[in-house]
Amino acid sequence: MQSPTPASPTFPDVLAAAARIVRHVHATPVLRTRSLDELAGCTLHFKAEHLQRTGAFKFRGASNAVWALSDARAALGVVTHSSGNHGAALALAALSRGIPCHVVTPANAVPTKLAAIAAYGAALHRCEPTLAAREAACARLQQHSGATLVHPYTSADVITGQGTAVLELLRTAGPLDDVVVPVGGGGLAAGTALTLAGIAPDTRLVVAEPSGADDTARSLASGARVTELTPDTVCDGLRATLGAPNFALLRAAGAETLVVDDDATLAAMRLVWQRMKQLIEPSAAVTLAAVLAHPQRFAGRRVGIVLSGGNADIAALTGAAA
Amino acid sequence: MQSPTPASPTFPDVLAAAARIVRHVHATPVLRTRSLDELAGCTLHFKAEHLQRTGAFKFRGASNAVWALSDARAALGVVTHSSGNHGAALALAALSRGIPCHVVTPANAVPTKLAAIAAYGAALHRCEPTLAAREAACARLQQHSGATLVHPYTSADVITGQGTAVLELLRTAGPLDDVVVPVGGGGLAAGTALTLAGIAPDTRLVVAEPSGADDTARSLASGARVTELTPDTVCDGLRATLGAPNFALLRAAGAETLVVDDDATLAAMRLVWQRMKQLIEPSAAVTLAAVLAHPQRFAGRRVGIVLSGGNADIAALTGAAA
Repeated sequence: MQSPTPASPTFPDVLAAAARIVRHVHATPVLRTRSLDELAGCTLHFKAEHLQRTGAFKFRGASNAVWALSDARAALGVVTHSSGNHGAALALAALSRGIPCHVVTPANAVPTKLAAIAAYGAALHRCEPTLAAREAACARLQQHSGATLVHPYTSADVITGQGTAVLELLRTAGPLDDVVVPVGGGGLAAGTALTLAGIAPDTRLVVAEPSGADDTARSLASGARVTELTPDTVCDGLRATLGAPNFALLRAAGAETLVVDDDATLAAMRLVWQRMKQLIEPSAAVTLAAVLAHPQRFAGRRVGIVLSGGNADIAALTGAAA
Repeated sequence: MQSPTPASPTFPDVLAAAARIVRHVHATPVLRTRSLDELAGCTLHFKAEHLQRTGAFKFRGASNAVWALSDARAALGVVTHSSGNHGAALALAALSRGIPCHVVTPANAVPTKLAAIAAYGAALHRCEPTLAAREAACARLQQHSGATLVHPYTSADVITGQGTAVLELLRTAGPLDDVVVPVGGGGLAAGTALTLAGIAPDTRLVVAEPSGADDTARSLASGARVTELTPDTVCDGLRATLGAPNFALLRAAGAETLVVDDDATLAAMRLVWQRMKQLIEPSAAVTLAAVLAHPQRFAGRRVGIVLSGGNADIAALTGAAA
């Protein structure tokens, strides 16, 4: 009997992830807002992952990856190359298990995000801001330390960990007609595909993507994964290119893609700030923007939305949104 | 037997208010945040009234005042002279009962706040930006329409309605050592005093006040109500002078006053934005600022805090906070 390959997780792996991380992650609330329901013409059920520890759903996948390691492997630590929400999430997950965490960060990373990662006790390793330099630095660290690479979105344990968000959403909200999640590298989207296939096969999976990083839409439309992308979007969490296992899972799920421009995303973000009083980041608002841009598509339906994160640079965004 | 005067509500009136408004107001959640507990050195239980309808606790008092009217009185409508959170709250409460609402607004009021009040169907009546002009306009409107004046903080029904927030907080959080509320005109503070006297006599009432509008601190210290005040604070909800019945209730309760300068309040507001991802307005942050400024006073205690509102001008505040 063959064990599943790292790239092919299944729904039972999501259930295993849920059991593994239950003591570590917040069971975030599902929020409802009358005025946004009226505006959208449907009922919106917001899974508040911006209230997750470290301020993003990423803590689910990172925790699952860290706690899935054997004691011997774990002792050698973990490594990744995200200077965003995944980096902070992995740092806190490693801290909670008491193991080393290395984060390779490009020289042009945002200082406040690096400070957050360092505050969780991770070792920062600067490198040139190219993919080649980043991967070389990661490989060197793995070789020297024996640390396990936890990829931000292609790792099977990360994908299944992210799938637990919509598992909780469905348990709280009940049956939904659509679940809308943002897509960048595709960790949350792929995990959600597994969850829907497992317990809600009639719920449609909709992935919302910025028009300035629309490789997922083009990949799913053409059937061939686009790997060349120069992202141009304010959604800093969605600039990654869709991963290979993520592409396979979204394709198998028949995911529907909705592409949104940044102006609509920033307008949706401001709506959530004003109406819900919830501080979400732009990457989390692409979902609501997609729903509001397609009123006929969603009319009268029960729609789940994952508010993916809340680590916004408010001062910069207020300028951008003015 | 004499009925209680409008200025002397008691705890049973708070219970009556709670029963009267239960179908109209949100039972807002009580939020906890590990990192703020660590920072403050105590456990903080945040009553999230920024998630109340209209974005502020004011909807409790306004709803109670509106629904306490007889059908005959109600049909003539209500009137007030607040262009802030109370104006919006009274407008929505009147809309929900289907009665007219008049709001007298000074010519220099914030346009976005006026738009919110108008969106709830209230009639706006502009006047010169002086207390005399405002009161004269209100008196004229009452005379012509027969509408009932609902004062923003001295009305007994408003005070008892505001008292329901901490009633819910205590039911959810359990016993508390301290309850900290912001104080401007004193509606929330006085209502909270009634609630604590009724069900939690050992819980200390702490009122937090901006240093640029510290009439309550001076009034309680001297035993004579200060009525001359030129407020100078970013906390636009706390610029009113403490009302007479409010003063009497706070004095009887032995309320403790903590005065906070605006820099500390804005820093506390940013902490709530960043750590809790909750968009609160400055007036709501004066409480946390007071707790953080007095670590020995609150060390190890169970502290309830009312996050009073979330109607912030984010763009202006981000500039102010930069």
